[in-house]
Parts: sequence; structure tokens; C-alpha cells
Amino acid sequence: MKETIIIEKEKVKKLKNPAVVIGLPGIGLIGQVVSKYIAKELKAKKIAVLYSPHFPHQVLMTKRGTMRLIRNSFYLHRGKKRDLIILVGDIQAMSSQGQYEVAGKIIDYVSGLGVKKVISVGGYSTGTMVDKRKIFGLATNPERISKLKKYGILFGETKGSIVGAAGIIPSLAALKGMEGVAILGETHGGYVDTAAAREIVKLLSRYFDLTISLKRIDERAKKSEKIIKKLEDEIKKNLETAFGQQGQTVSYIR
Amino acid sequence: MKETIIIEKEKVKKLKNPAVVIGLPGIGLIGQVVSKYIAKELKAKKIAVLYSPHFPHQVLMTKRGTMRLIRNSFYLHRGKKRDLIILVGDIQAMSSQGQYEVAGKIIDYVSGLGVKKVISVGGYSTGTMVDKRKIFGLATNPERISKLKKYGILFGETKGSIVGAAGIIPSLAALKGMEGVAILGETHGGYVDTAAAREIVKLLSRYFDLTISLKRIDERAKKSEKIIKKLEDEIKKNLETAFGQQGQTVSYIR
Amino acid sequence: MKETIIIEKEKVKKLKNPAVVIGLPGIGLIGQVVSKYIAKELKAKKIAVLYSPHFPHQVLMTKRGTMRLIRNSFYLHRGKKRDLIILVGDIQAMSSQGQYEVAGKIIDYVSGLGVKKVISVGGYSTGTMVDKRKIFGLATNPERISKLKKYGILFGETKGSIVGAAGIIPSLAALKGMEGVAILGETHGGYVDTAAAREIVKLLSRYFDLTISLKRIDERAKKSEKIIKKLEDEIKKNLETAFGQQGQTVSYIR
Amino acid sequence: MKETIIIEKEKVKKLKNPAVVIGLPGIGLIGQVVSKYIAKELKAKKIAVLYSPHFPHQVLMTKRGTMRLIRNSFYLHRGKKRDLIILVGDIQAMSSQGQYEVAGKIIDYVSGLGVKKVISVGGYSTGTMVDKRKIFGLATNPERISKLKKYGILFGETKGSIVGAAGIIPSLAALKGMEGVAILGETHGGYVDTAAAREIVKLLSRYFDLTISLKRIDERAKKSEKIIKKLEDEIKKNLETAFGQQGQTVSYIR
Repeated sequence: MKETIIIEKEKVKKLKNPAVVIGLPGIGLIGQVVSKYIAKELKAKKIAVLYSPHFPHQVLMTKRGTMRLIRNSFYLHRGKKRDLIILVGDIQAMSSQGQYEVAGKIIDYVSGLGVKKVISVGGYSTGTMVDKRKIFGLATNPERISKLKKYGILFGETKGSIVGAAGIIPSLAALKGMEGVAILGETHGGYVDTAAAREIVKLLSRYFDLTISLKRIDERAKKSEKIIKKLEDEIKKNLETAFGQQGQTVSYIR
Repeated sequence: MKETIIIEKEKVKKLKNPAVVIGLPGIGLIGQVVSKYIAKELKAKKIAVLYSPHFPHQVLMTKRGTMRLIRNSFYLHRGKKRDLIILVGDIQAMSSQGQYEVAGKIIDYVSGLGVKKVISVGGYSTGTMVDKRKIFGLATNPERISKLKKYGILFGETKGSIVGAAGIIPSLAALKGMEGVAILGETHGGYVDTAAAREIVKLLSRYFDLTISLKRIDERAKKSEKIIKKLEDEIKKNLETAFGQQGQTVSYIR
Repeated sequence: MKETIIIEKEKVKKLKNPAVVIGLPGIGLIGQVVSKYIAKELKAKKIAVLYSPHFPHQVLMTKRGTMRLIRNSFYLHRGKKRDLIILVGDIQAMSSQGQYEVAGKIIDYVSGLGVKKVISVGGYSTGTMVDKRKIFGLATNPERISKLKKYGILFGETKGSIVGAAGIIPSLAALKGMEGVAILGETHGGYVDTAAAREIVKLLSRYFDLTISLKRIDERAKKSEKIIKKLEDEIKKNLETAFGQQGQTVSYIR
Repeated sequence: MKETIIIEKEKVKKLKNPAVVIGLPGIGLIGQVVSKYIAKELKAKKIAVLYSPHFPHQVLMTKRGTMRLIRNSFYLHRGKKRDLIILVGDIQAMSSQGQYEVAGKIIDYVSGLGVKKVISVGGYSTGTMVDKRKIFGLATNPERISKLKKYGILFGETKGSIVGAAGIIPSLAALKGMEGVAILGETHGGYVDTAAAREIVKLLSRYFDLTISLKRIDERAKKSEKIIKKLEDEIKKNLETAFGQQGQTVSYIR
């Protein structure tokens, strides 16, 4: 395998004004938690799988004794007014060249399905813990910002650069005439942030008019918030040790 | 040389239901020891050689004063009921991209020979030394697991991921409609494990109905077991020093 | 995106004896400061944009909440006697292969526009601070040196090698029959050197017979000179600390 | 520039039984010293130049103020009985993929000129200093060893692997049906070894029946031997310091 490939599980026909939501592992694992949750709750159907030589040369072992390559998967949800493609993945490409190549393949594929809007989900690391997570947005088309603000997404409050797929995919999509948006959940950056993911699930439900129960993610978010609160307390007691343990719980393959 | 190439030494004709056994250097050198032993005992014939720019830019010097590129070699054994291709190699590709490229070339080549079953051999590192080595299996097709269990291969007892060719080659083969299996010998991970290799040679003999004498590998396994037992004793005396020496005897090019 | 691409914003027609000035971030940020300043003062028009998988997999966030890929941009100034293309960029490619690939694409593009002369701007790091910055030159065609000397550019006073685009682009251009020149401003190397950039803006104005006001860069140069002088004094007091702080103000993306 | 290119300075016609001698920077700089000396003494003509994105992204500055890309150059000497191509270079490719790519281009080029014999020159590092340097050989064709032994080249006295072009180029040539030989000068490995290079120049003169004066290299070898002897003495006095200084005098670009 010389380059990234997408293997279609079925030919998808006539989509209604489709958009794609990209959720890959990254800061706070927010992107991956969101895309997995939405795809599952919507019972979206797997339509294609992406493999890449820019992913690690490892295969994942399952409990029943099977193995499979590391991959990104495309799911399709046929909605009332518009269809939604959801990209869920084990990992992001490991190098700059890999990131651009994989992004290009994703864009070509969804563009072929008629997608005009590419929304990536990620985290914006602040290094502090807050109770109410904000949601930040970046758009490739400035004229779309005012509409997105109505959903409570904050624009112009982030600085610097977005590293990885959450920035590259929508920005590269814009070169092909598509509209790109990055939705970034405010997060500490040092742990998996289900509460931030929850806010984005809620936002996307409203934005795409989806019927998604928040029950499961509410429970998970509460549980992880408790653990984090506990950690916060311990951090106050012993700063260095607590951070050390925390760091080990974050990993890009889940 | 821009990419991995396979040079055929002869055109192979009409194989009987062929399978391929992949044995490359890896954990405990088990894969390489197994494939070399089988190819030699079966007096299998070298039919093709693989070279890759993803192998190190080194050539190996021989005792008589010749040199040759680092390579992987394909051997053919014509069996009673089915033919067997054996891949023996000096090394695995050094990067993720290299691993995927080399795996792709191997699969294309054996697929062209009619191979439908790809069995890789490797090690599963446990960090401990046991007398009786288990054999673990992973399959790309869940429906094959029950049959393989009858040969004493354990499924569902391994966790995490397989790094390298032992996982990538059978899993990539599955994408092309072939059946992939990884056979992993339980091993400490810190030394060459001939005893674990012996168990897998025995298993493959039964599985493929091959006539392979275990005499030579029995002797080697006994010898290396003695050395390891001795090491174990020394480790008990002086943990750090013994591991240090041990580490130096493991290397991926043999 | 598998390789570097240049997207033309408009088809450029019939240029008058065009030359290209390359100014990318590098030593003292001189190249980037010069090209940005000239393009802005001349109100040059953006005609094409270059993207590369050899740039970092990051997107830049703007104050108003948009994002964009890291890029290099081509500007066109239609002059009285000759037209000038100016390459301004966020960054240089990060690897040797990337540098050669990007350089090749730039050369192919400007060559297609009829460019015969490629002038790169960079810095020559001396590790010392001087009041009057010299300008050093390197040419791919020895027969052009005497003419360039008349403008006060010093030849044969530099040693070693030029790392990066300032050397690679004009030297690769020479392989295609174009004339390459590198203009290097003498600089300390440890900070952004607007004063050195100013000297080169002045030189290029004379060389290309451009009407460029130096007012804005004079002000910036004076300001940064004051800061540097202050730093010099502090360095005399506390050498190590001052250098440490200084180092952190240099970064290749601005 | 996406890949290694060879630019011919002139079309070479009908060579008499040509061989190629490869001398690139490596252990003890022996290969480069030998090829440069032979090309110069024979007043060989430059016929082609090789550039590669696998070389560093640097250009070399000359005393008179010109610059040029890092390169390898092919020289041609028309001999009495056979013609000789000599490859002289600033550097070897920096990665494994680069080494294989560059080697492939070199072999394709010389093969197109009718070359059947590829002789590389390098060093074999022993870590000790001896007065009389041995010359070791490795051949791709075992049947050529006995003839080469007659010239005093020692076979079967080296162990392990040859890293880099001195091994890769002749070994890759053998895959294309050419004959490959590596000639390695015994050397300490920690400094430029003109005396070892001298022995190989002498050997190649005899082997190819060339008229090469050893005067210039004799002088240089004597001079460097004196310096090394002096260093040896100092090493005896102060081992660590002397090695430190020594190390800094070796660099791959000259």
C-alpha cells in the first residue's frame, strides 16, 4: 500500500444536501468522543473505510481474537432535511505529509458524495479547568460567522494555530470550494474531556436538527467530571505527582 | 530504486491451493527462526527475492568475501495436498510507510500465485519466562477461529496491538479478500526464543501436514533453554547486570 | 494533497522582462520582512498561492475567527521597465526533500511567466551586532558579479553554505537556465533584524528602479535598534539570561 | 525537484569496455580523496552532474562569490584499453530511501553508457592506527575474487555490514547483471586517511593500467601521517582531549 485508500462498503446514492462531521482523536479526545457518540446514537451506517501508510504499522487485537488495521471510518445518517456523514477514527496521520495526504483523500471522497460543508470537531487547550465549557469556532468563509454565532459558538477568541486534522481538513476543503468550519471545545488539554464533548454533541444536534439523546454522554461526563474534580483537589495537594499520573491516561488510540 | 521490488528467480506454475507463511525478525526472533527452519528442513526452493529502499542502506558481508543487499526471500515447497510459500527475511521495513509498502508488494506477489491464506509468525512478549510456551492466534476472519483452536492455538488471550509485519501483512491481505492469521509464540521478549519457535514449527507441521524433523531445533532449543535458565539464576543474583548483557545479544539482522 | 501545489488566482498575461524576489522566513527574518514590505508598499497584487504537504500540518487562526492553511503567496507589481514578482511566505518547507520540491514548483511557475532572474533575500549570521549592516551577495553566474558589486553588494566575503530556500531556489533556477542571485543581510542571527531588512529594501529599490517609501521600515528599524541596544547593554550585565530571553522571540511563523 | 536527476553535460559516444569508480565521502574520507585525486591526475572530463532532494538543502559558497547546489559529478577518462568513469561527490544521500534512489539513478546512467563493472571505494574502520594499511575487498560475484586477490586485495577478512554508497551501489548494480566490487582501505575511522587513499590510488592504477603520478598524494599522506603520529603521542598523554579535537576535523562535505 503506497498511499491512503478509501474502500467503499456500498455505493451511496443521491444524498440530500450532505455535510460531513470529522471527529478524530486529538486534544482532550473531544473530536473522537463526539463523532463516535453521534454515529452510535444515530445508528449511522458504515459506508466506507480509510487506511493509510501514514498510520502506525500496528494492528489492533480484539477480545474475541480478531485483528484489524488502524483505520478511519465513514458513517452515513439519512436525516429529515439533510444527510450527515460522520468520520470516526482510531488515529490521525503521524506526519505533516500524511496529514495532507489523508485530508486530501477524505475531501475527494466526500466531495464526490456532494458534500459542500465540512465541520471538524476538536479541542482548544487552555490549561485550566472550568465548569462551563465554551465552544470556539473558526470558519474558512468569514460570511458564515454571524450565522454560526447564533448557535453560541464564539469566534475571534482563539489565538495561534490549530495543529492536525481539525484544522487541515476544513481548510483544505475550502481550497476545493467547500465551506469549512472547526468547532473547538474549551478544555484543559491534559485529560479526556467528555463534558466538553457533550456540549458539542448538543450544539451539533441543534445545528443539524438531529434527535440525539444526551443521556449516555451526560452520565459519562458526570463521572469523568467527578474524577477530574478529585484530581484537581489532589493537584492542589501535590502538583507534580498528580500531573504525572494524569498524563498517562491520554493516548491517541482508543 | 524508488520502491520495493520483487525479482522472480523463476516463473512458478500452477500451485495447489497455496498458503504463505511469513517469518520475519521481530519479538524473540521467533518468526525468523521458524521460517528459516521450515524452509531449510523442507529443502524449499528460492523462487523470488524482495528488495526495498525501506530497508537499511547497508550490505551484508559474507565470510568468503562477497556482499549482498539486505532482502526478504520467498521459498516454495510443493506439498502432497497443498503448496507452501515461505517468506524468510533479514529484516522488516524501518518505517510505517515502508511496512505498508512492503506488505502490499508481498500480498500482490503471493496473490498472483493463487494464495488465499496468509499466516504470519511472531512473538507475544510477556516479560516473564515460562517452561511451556503457549501459542496465541489472531484471525482476520472470526469464522476461522474455532477450527484453529482445535490445534491448540489460543484466541482472545492477547491484548493491545501487534506492531510490525506479523500484524500488518495478514490484516492487509484480508482487505484483498484473503484470509489472514497471526501465530504468536509466548515469549519473554528479551532474548532469542528457540523453544517458542519450536512449538510453532510443530504446530505448522501438523496444520499443513508437513514432514519436518524437529531434531535440530530441539537441540538448539535445549541449548538456549540452558543458557536462559542460567541467566535466570544470575538475574536473581544481580538483576541489572544480567539484563544488560542479555540485551546486547538481540539484534534484528542475523 | 500528495505534493506541493500552486493555485493561480488569475491568469497573468505578457509580463515585461520579469524578475522574482523570494523572501521567506529565515535568519533574522530578513527575507520575510523585505518581501512583505516591498509587496505592501508597491500595492502588488496577489496572483497565486502555494500550499505544500511539506509545510507544518497547522492552520493559522485570525483575529476575526477565520482560519487558513500555511502558505507562500506570489504578488505581482507591474513596473515601468520591468515587472516584479514577489514571493512572500509564512514558512519554508521543513525537510530537505520538501525544500527541493517546493523550490522546483516555484521555479516552474515563474519560469512559465517568463522570469529569467531569481533573487532571493536572506540573512548571513555573524553572531555580532554592528551599526552599519553590510549586504553580501552570491551569484550562480560569475559574469554578473561585477555589475552587482556596483550596487554595493559584497562578493567573496562569505564562507560555508547557505541553508534553506535563499540558496536552493536561485541555485536550482540556474539549472533551468535562469540567473540566480542571493542577497544576504549581515545580521547577528539571534533576533529579527529590521535594520538589515531596511538596507536590502533600499538596495532592491535602486536595483529595480522602484518607488518605495522607506518611512515605515525606518521607524520599525529605529524602534527595534533601540530594543537591541538595550539588550546589548543587558547582555553585558548578564550574558546568559539575556540570550535565553532573546532566543524565545525568534520563531519562523509570524 | 521531486527526485534525483542526472544532467548530462555532453552526449558520450562509444566507450571502450567502460568501468566506473565510485568515490564518495565516508569513513576516513577515503572514497572521496581517491576519486578526486584520480579524476584530477587523469585530467578526466566532467560529463554529467547528479542532484538529489535527498542531499541537504544547502548550497556551497565559493571564494569568488558564486554558489552551487550540493552534487555528485561524473568524469570520463578515455584510456588505452578501457575507458573509466569516475564519480566524485560532495556527499552521500542522507536517508535509506535516498541512498537506494541515488544508487539506482547512478546505475541506470552508467549502465546506459555500457558499464559492466562498478567499483566503489571506501574505508573499513578498525579503530586502531597502523603503518601499513591493508586493502580489503568485497565482490558481488564470487568467481571474481581469485583474480582480485592477485592485486593484493584481501577477501574474507571483514565482518558485519558496509553502511552507505560503497556497499549499496555495487550490490544494486549486481541486481542489474553488472559486476560489483567494493575496495575498502583499512583505517582508524576517526580522521581523514590520505595514506589509505594513497594505497588504493596505487592499486587502481595497476588494476586499470593507468598512468597516475603518486607525487602529490604521497606528500599529502606524509604530511597527514606526521600530524596523526603527533596526535597518537598526544593521545597517549591525554586520551580524551585529543579525540575531541580530532573529531571536529572530520566532516562529510569538503
